[in-house]
Amino acid sequence: MNKAKILVAYFSKSGNTEAMAQKVAEGAQAAGGEVDLMRIKELSAAALTKYDGIIIGTPTYYGLPAAGIKNLFDESVQIHRRLVGKVGGAFATAANIGGGNETAVLAILQAMLIHGMIVPGAAQGDHYGPIGINKPDERALKQAHALGERIATLAAKVMA
Amino acid sequence: MNKAKILVAYFSKSGNTEAMAQKVAEGAQAAGGEVDLMRIKELSAAALTKYDGIIIGTPTYYGLPAAGIKNLFDESVQIHRRLVGKVGGAFATAANIGGGNETAVLAILQAMLIHGMIVPGAAQGDHYGPIGINKPDERALKQAHALGERIATLAAKVMA
Amino acid sequence: MNKAKILVAYFSKSGNTEAMAQKVAEGAQAAGGEVDLMRIKELSAAALTKYDGIIIGTPTYYGLPAAGIKNLFDESVQIHRRLVGKVGGAFATAANIGGGNETAVLAILQAMLIHGMIVPGAAQGDHYGPIGINKPDERALKQAHALGERIATLAAKVMA
Amino acid sequence: MNKAKILVAYFSKSGNTEAMAQKVAEGAQAAGGEVDLMRIKELSAAALTKYDGIIIGTPTYYGLPAAGIKNLFDESVQIHRRLVGKVGGAFATAANIGGGNETAVLAILQAMLIHGMIVPGAAQGDHYGPIGINKPDERALKQAHALGERIATLAAKVMA
Repeated sequence: MNKAKILVAYFSKSGNTEAMAQKVAEGAQAAGGEVDLMRIKELSAAALTKYDGIIIGTPTYYGLPAAGIKNLFDESVQIHRRLVGKVGGAFATAANIGGGNETAVLAILQAMLIHGMIVPGAAQGDHYGPIGINKPDERALKQAHALGERIATLAAKVMA
Repeated sequence: MNKAKILVAYFSKSGNTEAMAQKVAEGAQAAGGEVDLMRIKELSAAALTKYDGIIIGTPTYYGLPAAGIKNLFDESVQIHRRLVGKVGGAFATAANIGGGNETAVLAILQAMLIHGMIVPGAAQGDHYGPIGINKPDERALKQAHALGERIATLAAKVMA
Repeated sequence: MNKAKILVAYFSKSGNTEAMAQKVAEGAQAAGGEVDLMRIKELSAAALTKYDGIIIGTPTYYGLPAAGIKNLFDESVQIHRRLVGKVGGAFATAANIGGGNETAVLAILQAMLIHGMIVPGAAQGDHYGPIGINKPDERALKQAHALGERIATLAAKVMA
Repeated sequence: MNKAKILVAYFSKSGNTEAMAQKVAEGAQAAGGEVDLMRIKELSAAALTKYDGIIIGTPTYYGLPAAGIKNLFDESVQIHRRLVGKVGGAFATAANIGGGNETAVLAILQAMLIHGMIVPGAAQGDHYGPIGINKPDERALKQAHALGERIATLAAKVMA
């Protein structure tokens, strides 16, 4: 069986989102995925087409992902229809519990749905995607690990 | 190969949402699904566990699904964790283009994500789920058919 | 100057949302509002028309307000256009940080926008509306108090 | 009485969003506002502080405003707390009815709420904000005009 290729891409200034990204990557690997972990700025829209599962992490800026992530989505119009059927997930960090974190995660998931991607939720914990408040604690890191597992497992099933 | 069991459940007063539900059901059948088409009030939360794919349609009432649908979701807490990995979709009708239709569709999809379900988007047309304005026209009915196909196809793949 | 009439209506089983509702009511009073605090089930849609400011609190059930609140909104179609220009706010409690709390708050705010109501955000803290995790802590109660103040202050200004 | 200063800022490639922006500006003027109409790229975050009402228009790119608009919001963190109490509105164009238009409008409104701004909805028509499908038709332009009036009227009331 071929391994699912999983991308974990993130934007991080303080290191908080990066810490979660590393746990997401570990989770995807634990579930058998072949994982690339990188910063958003290292990534071109075209590169997205190589992966079976795509996970994007962001700090929460005004209830949405960072502009650099929005920019990647705007450029991804060049590869529209080429992400159909891939599996997607998202996570966010923020300074506050009601800081716009869920809307930031959902904004990424909605962009993925618009690409025709497949998005799984979580019956336990942070349902739309993991959320870390400031420096991510044990709880948030555990959710991040579970997201990686979830995406890698579903991507392997869907690509089969 | 076993057929994917697909539920198309809807709330309809004017018949507009019902007309779309019928097209969704046809699409699911065309893609090889074994389809049950019923009104929300005929449905118990427990019955949801029987299906591989669940599609819910609603008129747009204050930017959200009808209270009857929300009630079903509230009751579904009894079967929480038993819908994990099932495939979900949603559609809506409304009186107006910016009438809260997308938020009504997304409210259903978010509830499905919270159940741990898997939600596919559409790269073409109504991305989150089909939207009919008043009596659904050709465009909306075509989107509805495509939604049924999309859910039945993915459900068959995921259950395999 | 006439006092702004403020309604704080909530749904609560565990008492968590009720505890926040009381703080919201205190905040509205502190800002000069004449406050009615009541359970959603004590409220008819018609009664909403009496108030200058309306604040609704809910537990988070599947990323949305409780069905009883959705039911009230569905019934409020009878008074559509009679809430135009009134001021609205919302708050929620949940079992988890990423538990669908923001979407529950936003669902209420969106229904209020559809009524033509006016919704103020918060530059500090829980931006869309206060969120309590389980038994609301000091932080959440402070946000709740601030919401009451914010709505009563704006309602007094808008009604002038 | 001082006139409310209203900003109508937009991003437009095809001219569709620009056509709506002009109608929004006309509506704001008709309601007594002193209106500046400009492209997003002509605007700095600091300039936002000069206005009593801020209206932003965007094409729908992946269910969200264009990256240039997100960039402006990210930069606006420098003036955080200085937009509190200002009135905000948003509008969008898209190629499709269910094309992510409502979520694009709501993304802007949510960012405004996070700035502590005040957002009015519309009881009639496009509730969250006007939506044009491709070249905006009579319906969409009328909604755009009404948005301008609504924001200018409320801004004048709130600044009094």
